[in-house]
Amino acid sequence: MIKSFTTLLCLLIFTSINAQTDEVVLKNIYSTSLTNGNSYNWLNHLSNQIGSRLSGSLGAERAVAYTKEELEKLGLDKVWLQPVMVPRWVRGAKEYAYIETVPGKTNTVNICALGGSVATPALGIKAHVVEVKNFEELATLGKANIEGKIVFYNRPMQADLIQTFEAYGGCVNQRYKGAVEASKYGAVGVIVRSMNLRLDDLPHTGSMTYDDIPVEKRIPAAAISTNDAEVLSTMLQLNNDIKLYFKQNCKQLADVQSYNVIGEITGSEFPNQYMVVGGHLDSWDLGDGSHDDGAGVVQSMEVLRLIKETGIKPKRSIRVVLFMNEENGLRGGNKYAEEAKKNNENHVFALESDAGGFTPRGFSFDCSDANYNQVLSWKSLFKPYLIDYFEKGGSGADVGPLKTKTNVLAGLRPDSQRYFDHHHASNDTFDAVNKRELELGAATMTSLVYLFDKYGVK
Amino acid sequence: MIKSFTTLLCLLIFTSINAQTDEVVLKNIYSTSLTNGNSYNWLNHLSNQIGSRLSGSLGAERAVAYTKEELEKLGLDKVWLQPVMVPRWVRGAKEYAYIETVPGKTNTVNICALGGSVATPALGIKAHVVEVKNFEELATLGKANIEGKIVFYNRPMQADLIQTFEAYGGCVNQRYKGAVEASKYGAVGVIVRSMNLRLDDLPHTGSMTYDDIPVEKRIPAAAISTNDAEVLSTMLQLNNDIKLYFKQNCKQLADVQSYNVIGEITGSEFPNQYMVVGGHLDSWDLGDGSHDDGAGVVQSMEVLRLIKETGIKPKRSIRVVLFMNEENGLRGGNKYAEEAKKNNENHVFALESDAGGFTPRGFSFDCSDANYNQVLSWKSLFKPYLIDYFEKGGSGADVGPLKTKTNVLAGLRPDSQRYFDHHHASNDTFDAVNKRELELGAATMTSLVYLFDKYGVK
Repeated sequence: MIKSFTTLLCLLIFTSINAQTDEVVLKNIYSTSLTNGNSYNWLNHLSNQIGSRLSGSLGAERAVAYTKEELEKLGLDKVWLQPVMVPRWVRGAKEYAYIETVPGKTNTVNICALGGSVATPALGIKAHVVEVKNFEELATLGKANIEGKIVFYNRPMQADLIQTFEAYGGCVNQRYKGAVEASKYGAVGVIVRSMNLRLDDLPHTGSMTYDDIPVEKRIPAAAISTNDAEVLSTMLQLNNDIKLYFKQNCKQLADVQSYNVIGEITGSEFPNQYMVVGGHLDSWDLGDGSHDDGAGVVQSMEVLRLIKETGIKPKRSIRVVLFMNEENGLRGGNKYAEEAKKNNENHVFALESDAGGFTPRGFSFDCSDANYNQVLSWKSLFKPYLIDYFEKGGSGADVGPLKTKTNVLAGLRPDSQRYFDHHHASNDTFDAVNKRELELGAATMTSLVYLFDKYGVK
Repeated sequence: MIKSFTTLLCLLIFTSINAQTDEVVLKNIYSTSLTNGNSYNWLNHLSNQIGSRLSGSLGAERAVAYTKEELEKLGLDKVWLQPVMVPRWVRGAKEYAYIETVPGKTNTVNICALGGSVATPALGIKAHVVEVKNFEELATLGKANIEGKIVFYNRPMQADLIQTFEAYGGCVNQRYKGAVEASKYGAVGVIVRSMNLRLDDLPHTGSMTYDDIPVEKRIPAAAISTNDAEVLSTMLQLNNDIKLYFKQNCKQLADVQSYNVIGEITGSEFPNQYMVVGGHLDSWDLGDGSHDDGAGVVQSMEVLRLIKETGIKPKRSIRVVLFMNEENGLRGGNKYAEEAKKNNENHVFALESDAGGFTPRGFSFDCSDANYNQVLSWKSLFKPYLIDYFEKGGSGADVGPLKTKTNVLAGLRPDSQRYFDHHHASNDTFDAVNKRELELGAATMTSLVYLFDKYGVK
């Protein structure tokens, strides 16, 4: 009797959920996120109890344990850790730098080592400075003008680009490849203007490469705050005989074991069709990584919580994947895709949130025209939530390796105006995240997952 | 020779501007605002050198002088002050309040007097507290339960409304009419939960009315922070015998002379068709009024600066109007409309920015279907700037009195998620405004003005 009553009850709930229009389901998702959400609580813990989570750090280790534990509380069908070896780079003691106009007369400037950089010699480096805006200028100056000097890359982010990620894309080669290029002409160090649209005193770190330069030939690279980049540039114009001193103490250690954290709701009809939502659990070490990418992590966790909370029973298997090591290696993203392939898992859809926890505007889609048109047909469902941006384009670094010819990859696109004020800097902290904006993002992601689960991928 | 050369040059410039497509003009407007804007500098001065600008205060007086002086630097055709008498309310010494559980055992709470409220008696008020969520509940409780007590209005803003101004609209009667309603049942004072979607410690002020209650019968009204509203409510549930003490020292003084600040570019073809852009120069006294409405003020000034800077020669007369006394009287808005009528000025269009300096999303239009359809035809021009919100609805309080059957009123609609975190509170300060967001708003306003000037009002 009790059993058949339970069955009946389940059937009723099931029927009623299925009978709901998409409008009602979305309304329920958004309302639940805004009035009874958990993303902000999770972020509070990640940011304020754990803090920064650079790959291989204690923070990253604690974040793995914490998010696994929290996912286990959600009553998902499976929660597990996927081992992945990650690089371990440590900053060491805080960097120090100054401009020397005449011997003994110095002006301190704010710098930080770029992620992956070697240290300076123990006593630091002091050298003349050559300012360039790009690699072409560097090549024109050549060895004669560069050897023995510090190269100062000072091409600012372009303020008149509306999408700030485009402005970032137009500058970031200075940071990523600057040391490699400057090395070719005998530079002894590299200073890069921070990738920041604002003038302030905070240096912004980020990844860089040495390509195949042997360890003993690598030159140290640091970011300088935008205010100090302006100061340095002006001082060079007044007198190009000035010198820059900098000292940094960072170190690349041996790779260590870490993990992607994964949770799954197994699909009721097509369990071998996988839909992924994710963000990256690692962060840079200067702030607490609230926007990059604590926000994406807790929003992705919230997607699965909202699915359960609102009674959605997915037909396909929905996974939350908290990727490790997006910032300086992408080992987690690559590992996840590798394992998926090995296990013949059919990943039909993957959505990443890695552009900050600001007001969501929509999504960028990497998919076929057929699937994109399907997305456009859902546009009116999102209108009440002021979600209007549906464009073809990139998705996210971590889900990128999952790309096939037929699946759909997507990236959440929040308002980007403030993002680079905080990106990779010490002010990427919890107070810069607005609870409602974060929750709206989680609801927007959940809504898209719900629709793709219901209507499938073309 | 020189003269004809100048004429030729003017002709060339004129032709080239006219030959530009709307796409090019908008691009130029946005680029100029983002790379060579002045709105943020003006706001810096208004917020950090002048500060709060409550009607009748020294700050308001200085803001009138400063903005007039700055408009004069722009080379407009006319700049003038329009006299208007405004109310003058002063807060006096900071308010003080506590909850008393048993005599001598007290818990301080954060309050601030509502704008227009009377003071408490010199020794303050201590009384039992009745918590209600709305006026119906108040009426049900009636005199028997309310007389001699403090009424505590505690209906929170509804978090699941996407547009936060709607949530504000659903609560603000507690603040505006709370004292009038509570007076009817013999309450001795009113405490209102701050209009804030966030839980924090800051009380938010705002206007209130006494209708026609004689001065000697007016009861004091204050806002309490959301955190303390929660504390008070919980303590009342545990023990409704607790008392609340509060003391405030505010005062309504005699009206004083103030001004709307007005600048004009006179139209080349239809000088008696006026198009207004404006914000309000007054602010509440707790913060520095950067979002409300410093942002609207500097964006409106920037519209005229951008028009000149980008070489647009308007056919109609474009006015910037910096309205005085929006917050507690609307005297400036009413005065401007009154004078416009008296002078037979045909106001075909008016746009207000008074919803914060956040990323612009679009506009709300109060106009005919024909004009609204015209706006919709411009939608694609705004797409590159991520402006997508074009809806029929309200415009702005200050421009409201200009409404006719045929003209177009509009309000800039920025992202509203964070607005009520700052609205009327001590954290409405310059640091909460992002330069790019402010500049995008100014460019968006300028673009709409340009299009309405070019194509006219239907």
